[in-house]
Amino acid sequence: MQISDKVPRQEIQRRVQNFQLFLKQEALDGAMILQNVDIYYFSGTIQPSMLFIPVEGSPVLIVFKNYPRARQESSLNTVITAQNKAQVPQIIKDFGFGKPATLGFEIDVVPAFLYLWLQNAFPGCRLRDVSKAIRQLRMLKSTYEIDQIKKTAPILDKGYNHLKDIMAVGMTELEIDGNLALLARRHGHMGILRMRGWNQEMTYAHVLSGASGSVVSFLNSPHGGSGTTPAMAQGAGFRRIRQNEPIGIDYGVGVNGYLGDQFRTFVIGRLPNELEKAHACAVDILALLVREAQPGMLCSDLYHLAHSKAAKAGLADFFMGTAEGQVEFIGHGLGLEIDELPIIGLHSTDKLQPGMVMALEPKFVFPGKGVVGLEDDYVMTTGGLERITLIEQALICVEP
Amino acid sequence: MQISDKVPRQEIQRRVQNFQLFLKQEALDGAMILQNVDIYYFSGTIQPSMLFIPVEGSPVLIVFKNYPRARQESSLNTVITAQNKAQVPQIIKDFGFGKPATLGFEIDVVPAFLYLWLQNAFPGCRLRDVSKAIRQLRMLKSTYEIDQIKKTAPILDKGYNHLKDIMAVGMTELEIDGNLALLARRHGHMGILRMRGWNQEMTYAHVLSGASGSVVSFLNSPHGGSGTTPAMAQGAGFRRIRQNEPIGIDYGVGVNGYLGDQFRTFVIGRLPNELEKAHACAVDILALLVREAQPGMLCSDLYHLAHSKAAKAGLADFFMGTAEGQVEFIGHGLGLEIDELPIIGLHSTDKLQPGMVMALEPKFVFPGKGVVGLEDDYVMTTGGLERITLIEQALICVEP
Repeated sequence: MQISDKVPRQEIQRRVQNFQLFLKQEALDGAMILQNVDIYYFSGTIQPSMLFIPVEGSPVLIVFKNYPRARQESSLNTVITAQNKAQVPQIIKDFGFGKPATLGFEIDVVPAFLYLWLQNAFPGCRLRDVSKAIRQLRMLKSTYEIDQIKKTAPILDKGYNHLKDIMAVGMTELEIDGNLALLARRHGHMGILRMRGWNQEMTYAHVLSGASGSVVSFLNSPHGGSGTTPAMAQGAGFRRIRQNEPIGIDYGVGVNGYLGDQFRTFVIGRLPNELEKAHACAVDILALLVREAQPGMLCSDLYHLAHSKAAKAGLADFFMGTAEGQVEFIGHGLGLEIDELPIIGLHSTDKLQPGMVMALEPKFVFPGKGVVGLEDDYVMTTGGLERITLIEQALICVEP
Repeated sequence: MQISDKVPRQEIQRRVQNFQLFLKQEALDGAMILQNVDIYYFSGTIQPSMLFIPVEGSPVLIVFKNYPRARQESSLNTVITAQNKAQVPQIIKDFGFGKPATLGFEIDVVPAFLYLWLQNAFPGCRLRDVSKAIRQLRMLKSTYEIDQIKKTAPILDKGYNHLKDIMAVGMTELEIDGNLALLARRHGHMGILRMRGWNQEMTYAHVLSGASGSVVSFLNSPHGGSGTTPAMAQGAGFRRIRQNEPIGIDYGVGVNGYLGDQFRTFVIGRLPNELEKAHACAVDILALLVREAQPGMLCSDLYHLAHSKAAKAGLADFFMGTAEGQVEFIGHGLGLEIDELPIIGLHSTDKLQPGMVMALEPKFVFPGKGVVGLEDDYVMTTGGLERITLIEQALICVEP
């Protein structure tokens, strides 16, 4: 098997070293990394395994299945095989790490049965959350990571451009969604958009026409859509698209684990005046954010800038959702998961830093009428925001 | 908003009553249901909420977001709104359920932070796993549930038939996967295939040509595939399909939450002799299982029947995977999740019962050559297995 897109060794080393600095500061003896995405971040593989990262020394990747594949995919030096997790404490001991007195774990994603296993497997050991620290490390992207995220942009661009050719009155939202799925996979989308939040799930895209755009969902997002069923109450549904209504299209793809996440408003014909103005306001807000964003600035200040501009236009009630569906952010970090740090929102205490990658998504939602706005991906550099998104048009009008 | 596919009230009532019988037997005061899928099973909605099911009396669905939507989607009598989870213990008290002494929760899926919250929110309360009981309840499907699963079959049939028209030498696995995604969504696939197992994830389909079919993955499955990246190491990849090699296509869709999961072997031209024989053996095994399966029979005996037939054909080493990738089951339950009970496997202690829905998937994996076999969906009735799958052909040969 050929591993064309292996995470480089120096990349893995840097990540582990940064995490070990944190472990040292917090006086932790080590951490057991258990979740797919975090294991991938620190090892380069998601084969069934547990990863022990000691405060000092080499991490040990303990693989339960597909050892040869894990060995090939990972740049870590120490990749070993084990029958089951009962062997893990002894393995850690055998590698000279004794019996850890304090151990980090991912409190937000590790299921209770594994948490209770950790308690039993390491009796007397104090378990401490390291999930927040991992998310903060992952917030700052390396050049390698930014390059991966940039690979998503041409795929999203192709998808949006393809829609210009095929979109027609009477098509269902699902038909458009299916075409985006075809385009995504054709061009290498890895087939999943990962979200870390508890009970949060994603379809490949959201296609929300007219009133669908104002249906709120279980997603932590300004729009959700009806979906096809209460059992997966989000995204495209059976509704047929009409002339002169907004068709909001949220489109995400993943390359080598890293995600791109963009949004465009389409219309067959022309938007109603009120919505056209709101869309223009979203475009102005995004331009303002891109102009103003600088390292050192509070993410919450960026949110306030956007909110003020919306309020001045008399659109505060529709900004980033409406009524109960309103969210208090205008952007979020992007990386291996779609809900990464920083949150560009009211309650964020993070400051903008070079290496942050984020999706900025000023949108307006009008009850019964739909969602308008746009979402572009950016990387924060010392000189300001650098655009990753390729598609130029903000509002995409298709001839009826 | 129109809720066309609401779970019927009597369906929800029956599920809750059955679960309450279990709570009574186990002397539990109630259970806090926290995971999306389980909340859907007992309430009909996945809006952000927690569901308290007392041992006696009406369940209380406590909704944190989108109350109107949850109220519309759920057939439960008691659906109330709350600001946050801190209010939950008082709400339960206010509904007359006092301070529970023992409380059930889903140990296999609930993250540690929520488990620890439960411990703090209900001090002195003994927390006990009810996940196994929920999975066992869900193992036996009602007529309503079977009807939903049957709705997946025409979609899968359309997908397989479409491939006969478009499959050609030189296409990538991803192109085929994308076409299956388009077909699935066009015909109403809900956009996700849920899997309960920790760290288990799914793409819409698996398209595994030639050697890809023998690449093992992190999935608990006889085949996995390379995928496009170690970050999502399963399913279709960039490989171009060739003449005279097996193209294994695992295809799943969901309707109203319920999943169908089938597999077909395609070939452009003709399979090599060895693989053609193995495929015929898989067809014979499936026919044998369908002939022999009766209520009361042990699932493990069904597995043994299959294994013996494979062994007699001299194919034991390739049966259900090869070497480390070999799995010890030939089928699994199907419902809201793709890894439901029963497991038709070596270690299962379940007996076949009317109402079980299962995917039976005899397959052979040849290192470097690929995967052959088939997978059909069945419902267990008093008279034996009733076929849900529509597509008739077992091996689908396409002209070069």
